[in-house]
Amino acid sequence: MSEHTTDFEQQLSAVISAVTPTDPAAEKAAWDRLDSLTKPPRSLGRLEELAARVARVQGTDRPTVANKAVCIMAGDHGVVAEGVAAYPQDVTWQMVANFTVGGAAINQIAESVGAQVVVTDVGVARDISHLEGVAHRKVALGTANMAVGPAMSREQAAQAVLVGIETARSLAENGCTLLGTGEMGIGNTTAASALTSAYTGTAPSDVVGRGTGLDDAGVMLKAEVVARALQVNDTASADALGVLAAVGGLEIAALAGVVIGAAESGVCVVSDGFISGAATLAAVRMCPAAADYVFPSHLSVEPGHAVVLGALGLEPVLELDMRLGEGTGAALSFAILDAACHMMSGMATFAEAGVSEAE
Amino acid sequence: MSEHTTDFEQQLSAVISAVTPTDPAAEKAAWDRLDSLTKPPRSLGRLEELAARVARVQGTDRPTVANKAVCIMAGDHGVVAEGVAAYPQDVTWQMVANFTVGGAAINQIAESVGAQVVVTDVGVARDISHLEGVAHRKVALGTANMAVGPAMSREQAAQAVLVGIETARSLAENGCTLLGTGEMGIGNTTAASALTSAYTGTAPSDVVGRGTGLDDAGVMLKAEVVARALQVNDTASADALGVLAAVGGLEIAALAGVVIGAAESGVCVVSDGFISGAATLAAVRMCPAAADYVFPSHLSVEPGHAVVLGALGLEPVLELDMRLGEGTGAALSFAILDAACHMMSGMATFAEAGVSEAE
Repeated sequence: MSEHTTDFEQQLSAVISAVTPTDPAAEKAAWDRLDSLTKPPRSLGRLEELAARVARVQGTDRPTVANKAVCIMAGDHGVVAEGVAAYPQDVTWQMVANFTVGGAAINQIAESVGAQVVVTDVGVARDISHLEGVAHRKVALGTANMAVGPAMSREQAAQAVLVGIETARSLAENGCTLLGTGEMGIGNTTAASALTSAYTGTAPSDVVGRGTGLDDAGVMLKAEVVARALQVNDTASADALGVLAAVGGLEIAALAGVVIGAAESGVCVVSDGFISGAATLAAVRMCPAAADYVFPSHLSVEPGHAVVLGALGLEPVLELDMRLGEGTGAALSFAILDAACHMMSGMATFAEAGVSEAE
Repeated sequence: MSEHTTDFEQQLSAVISAVTPTDPAAEKAAWDRLDSLTKPPRSLGRLEELAARVARVQGTDRPTVANKAVCIMAGDHGVVAEGVAAYPQDVTWQMVANFTVGGAAINQIAESVGAQVVVTDVGVARDISHLEGVAHRKVALGTANMAVGPAMSREQAAQAVLVGIETARSLAENGCTLLGTGEMGIGNTTAASALTSAYTGTAPSDVVGRGTGLDDAGVMLKAEVVARALQVNDTASADALGVLAAVGGLEIAALAGVVIGAAESGVCVVSDGFISGAATLAAVRMCPAAADYVFPSHLSVEPGHAVVLGALGLEPVLELDMRLGEGTGAALSFAILDAACHMMSGMATFAEAGVSEAE
């Protein structure tokens, strides 16, 4: 068991070592082209910045994100025993079932932007192996209660990260040029709050929010549970993987893997809301070179998300007061990135179109 | 001539009278459905608000904006004689030609969101009747210089508004369920600034901006020219159509018509940036009932746009530091509205999906 165990961390280290930063020269070439197109220079603002960043990742001045997928990771959380969630734990597997029949918000939003939805069970607290349309990669039947001990062992966390890496790698091998992160897991805003607090040093009370619908007393309890988890697990002494194991979640670890796997494959990845953001922060703390491949999406209503985005140095593309998760913000942002790439790759230059330049 | 002239204003009055407000009961039914779908209530924030507003316009709880078009109106401005534009006037017709071959930003962005682009010449200062792919509805070879007298006669303005109404009506008759406004016209941020100042009472210096690329001295000159135009034309004593004629533009009047025509046809219309916003303000001042049909898009970098949106009571959906026009912000917002309608019309309810509700 311990040999196998060591294997997961070793495999993860090997992938992390294989991630290479992107080339600034590609971004310079991108700006040369953008400034030659038939529009006042920089008049498309952040759309041009996004196009230039995709161009840098792809190493071309004709970027494309035509083939898109949202990777949803599902897992349960032992910390729900503390009463930190507004919905019963069964909602996790019920929503996974809903994803497989197209009934959830992410299915509809993904369809509207032409993206596929890929659902993986990394840690749902129930046997759902009968469900079709789900990748069955369960590492455990949910995490342990982080308020009394580590949510996962280091080995489980590394294994879950590898599930995400393999998911991203497989999608990239099949031609995907844009990945998005999404999650389902009752209780996971509590885990995301603990990770955010541990990685950034922000007080628990400044990162916790209402999640799916807590009242004021619920939010206070959540902050107290997060503070207890950080203390019980001594996260201050842990490395990035150690923090993830102690107070993260199986689906969060897998999403960190999606980010690392996208970077390893040279593919852009859009980080969704608060939980995905915490997973992205875990990924970048374990693998700093992955940051070049990460794109922002929306700003969630959850207060911890702004803390996460600040730590990642990302400015949101959308602010629509959303707080659903599932990858809904990432999928919406796909449309913006797609428009940015169409613009950059398809527009005529001043010379090609015979349009006069500024006087 | 004067009989024909009277005709345009009479025709316009008849259309304005035909615009009816939307039904609040349809929005109530929309919220009932939205709150039954498999997500925490209101967790999709503004996406739900947008869906509910489309549902209200369409009178159904299964809204759709599948068939989309950006209406670009093109026209020139006599006020360029005052040196208020960074690009030569020829760029107007050159860009119209660029639109017809798919080389402009709007072509690419519209393609990425599955929208058609419809280009109309209402007032380009050059004979472009040979250009295919353009609706030729020229009212005049550009406006007169508003800094020395009215930009248009009342009759010309009404005629241009009718061009826009007919454009919207024709698209609606052909099945379009979502229209967007867009424009091309060197000098038109000066006209939009004058309209915004006249309609809202805001000082010219608080609405003018850099347009396509003025320096500080250029911006000061622009404010001075706008102030002179308002005084010379005594806009303070004019009605909404009178203001539009005096300091507007042919393409701006036509866009006001697109808004009124969309409302007359019961179709949602997305207002693009600053110039489109000024046109929307003109439309709503002439026809208050049209406001129900208007949707916001982005917030432009042009300072006058925030003034316009405030006067219209619209909150932008996107803030991407854009300032190009052409309908680019409207087209980007189509993707958000499309996602909102997909979500509302395609999601399962808690009962349908067998998902537990909050405890």
